[in-house]
Amino acid sequence: KRRYTITLLPGDGIGPEVISVAKNVLNLTGSLEGIEFGFKEMPMGGAALDLTGVPLPEETLSTAKQSDAVLLGAIGGYKWDKNEKHLKPETGLLQLREGLKVFANLRPASVLPQDVSGLNSIFHCITRAHVVLVIVLRYKPLVEFISTFSLTYFRMTLVDASTLKKEVAEGVDLMVVRELTGGIYFGKPRGFGMNENGEEIGFNTEIYATYEIDRIARVAFETARKRRGKLCSVDKANVLEASMFWRKRVMAIALEYPDVELTHMYVDNAAMQLVRNPKQFDTIVTNNIFGDILSDEASMITGSIGMLPSASLGEAGPGLFEPIHGSAPDIAGKDKANPLATILSAAMLLKYGLGEEEAALRIETAVLDTLTRGFRTGDIYSGENKLVGCKEMGDEVLKSI
Amino acid sequence: KRRYTITLLPGDGIGPEVISVAKNVLNLTGSLEGIEFGFKEMPMGGAALDLTGVPLPEETLSTAKQSDAVLLGAIGGYKWDKNEKHLKPETGLLQLREGLKVFANLRPASVLPQDVSGLNSIFHCITRAHVVLVIVLRYKPLVEFISTFSLTYFRMTLVDASTLKKEVAEGVDLMVVRELTGGIYFGKPRGFGMNENGEEIGFNTEIYATYEIDRIARVAFETARKRRGKLCSVDKANVLEASMFWRKRVMAIALEYPDVELTHMYVDNAAMQLVRNPKQFDTIVTNNIFGDILSDEASMITGSIGMLPSASLGEAGPGLFEPIHGSAPDIAGKDKANPLATILSAAMLLKYGLGEEEAALRIETAVLDTLTRGFRTGDIYSGENKLVGCKEMGDEVLKSI
Ligand SMILES: CC(C)[C@H](C(=O)O)[C@@H](O)C(=O)O
Ligand SMILES: CC(C)[C@H](C(=O)O)[C@@H](O)C(=O)O
Repeated sequence: KRRYTITLLPGDGIGPEVISVAKNVLNLTGSLEGIEFGFKEMPMGGAALDLTGVPLPEETLSTAKQSDAVLLGAIGGYKWDKNEKHLKPETGLLQLREGLKVFANLRPASVLPQDVSGLNSIFHCITRAHVVLVIVLRYKPLVEFISTFSLTYFRMTLVDASTLKKEVAEGVDLMVVRELTGGIYFGKPRGFGMNENGEEIGFNTEIYATYEIDRIARVAFETARKRRGKLCSVDKANVLEASMFWRKRVMAIALEYPDVELTHMYVDNAAMQLVRNPKQFDTIVTNNIFGDILSDEASMITGSIGMLPSASLGEAGPGLFEPIHGSAPDIAGKDKANPLATILSAAMLLKYGLGEEEAALRIETAVLDTLTRGFRTGDIYSGENKLVGCKEMGDEVLKSI
Repeated sequence: KRRYTITLLPGDGIGPEVISVAKNVLNLTGSLEGIEFGFKEMPMGGAALDLTGVPLPEETLSTAKQSDAVLLGAIGGYKWDKNEKHLKPETGLLQLREGLKVFANLRPASVLPQDVSGLNSIFHCITRAHVVLVIVLRYKPLVEFISTFSLTYFRMTLVDASTLKKEVAEGVDLMVVRELTGGIYFGKPRGFGMNENGEEIGFNTEIYATYEIDRIARVAFETARKRRGKLCSVDKANVLEASMFWRKRVMAIALEYPDVELTHMYVDNAAMQLVRNPKQFDTIVTNNIFGDILSDEASMITGSIGMLPSASLGEAGPGLFEPIHGSAPDIAGKDKANPLATILSAAMLLKYGLGEEEAALRIETAVLDTLTRGFRTGDIYSGENKLVGCKEMGDEVLKSI
């Protein structure tokens, strides 16, 4: 029996609900696949603040570091919104990313035609998944691992759920590669103070060094190479020095990837083009803050942020897997959350974090099957299917497994 | 006869084409309304670089400062993309904004039902415009001026041109109030250098002082008060100190506006919500860089960035009026540009920059009439109307005048 230690970080809001469902899914899958999971559930975010006074207790970080992979629910909520910086749930998440050194955040967004529920599409998905699986071996380097991402998962979002016109949304299949441990999120100096005129100020530093850009650029080029060979680097190089430097390094790394078509786009234009014609994008690489904004915008284009998983990876050590959505305090505790993004994050954890492809495929197939059987949570419900809550959706996925 | 000096800055790409059309429109309108315009056409952007070696010649800035209003086409192009920072066309634009001290950039985005072309809608528009005009007196303070913006113009964008579903796009009527002379665009220190490890770096500073936030917040509250009374302040206060300070000051200024409903939203969520449900927004206020991104995204929701004007205003001195769109080098010189955004910017210049309401209304009405008569440039053409180029569109507007 294979044994893995998984750190579970339920966090806040709907986090505990979706993590509890994903844990059941992992357990059942494990028992059928001969895998034993040792779960360590640790507090973080607002929950940790309430319990221990800090958003990322040392023990949580060290447990995470020592485990084989980390699955996070969501963090944050109104309750802690006015906390000082170091006592914000979000600060705990930033410390976790920094602590695990997961500099590459991969956020896919795809839209599948509504007929996903037809067997055809499913088998198409699964076949593609299998083809891909054959070439993904356990413990292959990071880049290998990333490359096959979007081919398999995330194709199950339903075109009708998008607010974009069908012909605009259908067939969108893009991947945002976001730099996650640098830029204005971590740059110093930062803080509050006074200017020459004695006026109060607040300030942050957007800053990138060569190695930070180079490594994320390589991840992005590798990703693009295994996808459709197109990489769009997004910056604001017409105004910001940090962006000019970003562009310079990306162009330098491009020399290693002559087979990948590199373009550059200003961030304001990218925000526009994502709405105008998202199909033009294959892989997007960008800094931490632009990636935050654009990946959220892109995920909304698919119409269901409730179904999109993400992975954050470093050069070594456990990866961090989490749904793209937030803690949704407005529906927390109401059994309304869509657990599929977290279940799919768990599948990604299996496949990419542990190399357990068969187990991952089992979950993936079960999610597709559950959707095929017509079950929908509120966020993707369109009036014709079976409306279920978070727990029931989880139970249906268990049945499909 | 009233006489005004207008500085025209054609700039680059399609800039000269749209400015030339707008100039004709201003001239004809003036001759019918008893206004005489003294135009001073000055180089800026890439055109100025080629001519004088700098993107904003001193003479251009001083001419602009001494005039009654400034009308800008567009700047930038591939040719100068790799120029050093101080030799970029964009740097000229930033210097112009700084030089004119126009700290408040107002970018409306509205979508009108397709039946705009019905007389009903037009008269509705015009009536609303008139009602508003009565309360806008010449030389009233800035805030008065801003308040009536979106009521009158910008309602003519056609819902079919949007990539969003009709029920999502229809009825969108929002205004982005963007801080324009501060933040990461101007913050120091900035530049290139080396870190402790001898690695190259590029960096910028996001920074706001009390007075900068207070004055843009007041403009935004005044705008919201005269609109639907809702203001959404967008920041990233869960991560950035500059945003925490922004939020603190906006909340302080809110005490002066108990009648305006203030909410706060994180920028990633705002980028998402603009796609998910743009109708939830009335007035948005945000910093320079987030405003750059979100206003472009919002304008694309209307489906026609080619029709949206904008105004940049300070506490005194001439305002800067320009279309929201860029220089579109790909269609430059091909007589394909949509001149309506610039024509409407000229109308805004008349109304808000010079207090010439009647003349402004004449232009506004002419644009509506031209659309009603079925003329469309490529960007808003949907197959059923009369496809025209930039010049012909301008001629049709002249006929309508
Ligand atoms: C919660 C917040 C700190 C975080 C971020 O800005 O990175 C979130 O928005 C995300 O995208 O994961
Ligand atoms: C051209 C560029 C400097 C400018 C900006 O970023 O402000 C433009 O994108 C705009 O929004 O007016």
